[in-house]
Amino acid sequence: MDRLETISEQRLHGGLQGFYRHRSEACDGPMRFAVYQPPRAARQPCPVLYFLAGLTCSEETATIKAGAQRLAAELGLVLVMPDTSPRDTGFDGATGDWEFGEGAGFYVDASQAPWSSRFRMHSYVVDELPQLIATQFPVDTSLSGICGHSMGGHGALTMALKHPGRYRSVSAFAPIVAPSQVPWGHKALPRYLGDDPAAWADYDACELVRRRVFPGTILIDQGEADPFLDTQLKPELFDQACAEAGQPLLLRRHIGYDHSYWFIASFIDDHLRHHARALGVA
Amino acid sequence: MDRLETISEQRLHGGLQGFYRHRSEACDGPMRFAVYQPPRAARQPCPVLYFLAGLTCSEETATIKAGAQRLAAELGLVLVMPDTSPRDTGFDGATGDWEFGEGAGFYVDASQAPWSSRFRMHSYVVDELPQLIATQFPVDTSLSGICGHSMGGHGALTMALKHPGRYRSVSAFAPIVAPSQVPWGHKALPRYLGDDPAAWADYDACELVRRRVFPGTILIDQGEADPFLDTQLKPELFDQACAEAGQPLLLRRHIGYDHSYWFIASFIDDHLRHHARALGVA
Repeated sequence: MDRLETISEQRLHGGLQGFYRHRSEACDGPMRFAVYQPPRAARQPCPVLYFLAGLTCSEETATIKAGAQRLAAELGLVLVMPDTSPRDTGFDGATGDWEFGEGAGFYVDASQAPWSSRFRMHSYVVDELPQLIATQFPVDTSLSGICGHSMGGHGALTMALKHPGRYRSVSAFAPIVAPSQVPWGHKALPRYLGDDPAAWADYDACELVRRRVFPGTILIDQGEADPFLDTQLKPELFDQACAEAGQPLLLRRHIGYDHSYWFIASFIDDHLRHHARALGVA
Repeated sequence: MDRLETISEQRLHGGLQGFYRHRSEACDGPMRFAVYQPPRAARQPCPVLYFLAGLTCSEETATIKAGAQRLAAELGLVLVMPDTSPRDTGFDGATGDWEFGEGAGFYVDASQAPWSSRFRMHSYVVDELPQLIATQFPVDTSLSGICGHSMGGHGALTMALKHPGRYRSVSAFAPIVAPSQVPWGHKALPRYLGDDPAAWADYDACELVRRRVFPGTILIDQGEADPFLDTQLKPELFDQACAEAGQPLLLRRHIGYDHSYWFIASFIDDHLRHHARALGVA
């Protein structure tokens, strides 16, 4: 692991909002992420909540727009917000399409060339980044939660379901819950993972929850005015899969809310409290 | 007054975050602004708080970065955030310098050509915009407060001191309090107002407070790690002017905080409560 480069650190809500860059082994190149340290982190290790952003977003998006730091400061939660993919890969087709490539890593470990050499966001978020965070920030790595939005909600759900020992809690805003069944997945998953649907199932929350439930209630918020609701998100598929698998799920539908960070900001406090309860700080 | 064009309206904290455009008479061209309507505004007229942004900013900056809507929703405050100048003026020198011209209107009514034909932000914010807001949104115009950041803090202070009947409350983050005495003012004011310092004094909070105090305590927050503190902001000048004039001032200095919106987000709730008390909703 290369050394951590600090891009910026600024005082926020009595704590510290930082942006960092390092060389990732999993993604074979530079990766950026943001960390918010609450005031309590100056005195003792704190639980950590990972937030995974969606298509077109970066480590800056939720950091700037979600408004999570105010309550994280009060609860004593460290927030870690990674970028959504490697950048400046130079791969043919890596830019120019907001639904695939850079900014659209889909939190998988790609198996198909050329993506397999750099687009390994699953390993990056589940393994490499937490190891880096553990050595560089005052966190209690035994107390981790994961949350995400849209493509990042897909990432959070699949990571928690595949690695329940790593995360005490999971939640999502307007997540992609069944990428094997929707256009976003049909476009991205074959290019990252090949044409065999069995490979897609390994990154499909509806499939994963049937294999093994998460030991805790999953919280999902969904806006009813979300333009992707019926075509890409289909929360009813996850609702049904959870019911059949015996997975506790709290799926809340909010009239009038869309897919934006205004929606996330409106309910982020509920998500922080959901995680804080599981992490023993609320 | 031309009709109001809605750019977007989205659900936020139970209320509505909107972006709008209209043709301004004062600025002789299109102007944009943002309005947040709290849930209470669906049932009754609400007090209104104007927030004026600083150099390089627009109607989007504080709307996205200040995190003001959460508590505004709870308190029942309408938030109005205008752009910082006319745009696309085509004037020679209007772009390319972040300290002057578009994005840097300094909230004055310019008297010098060509600026005098478009750069009339003082009249726009004090007169035209409130009239438009009164006809188009559920506000109680007898209950208005004004707040701003940096150049916008200068705008808020000078507007409240010049028109105390219009505003029940005023506050600022890291305001320019003495533009007649600092480089930002020395660059912008002569080009907008001419070379006579008497014209600058009409837009200088330190001068204005000596002429007439504001009927209420002025709240100012200032970060001690603000890189503009000693050269451009000099809050001690306003502190002294207020003391000499008998103006109640609460000037808070915050160790470690800089000039950014992270600083604003950290203390915006205190400002909302300051205004809410004066506006009778807290």
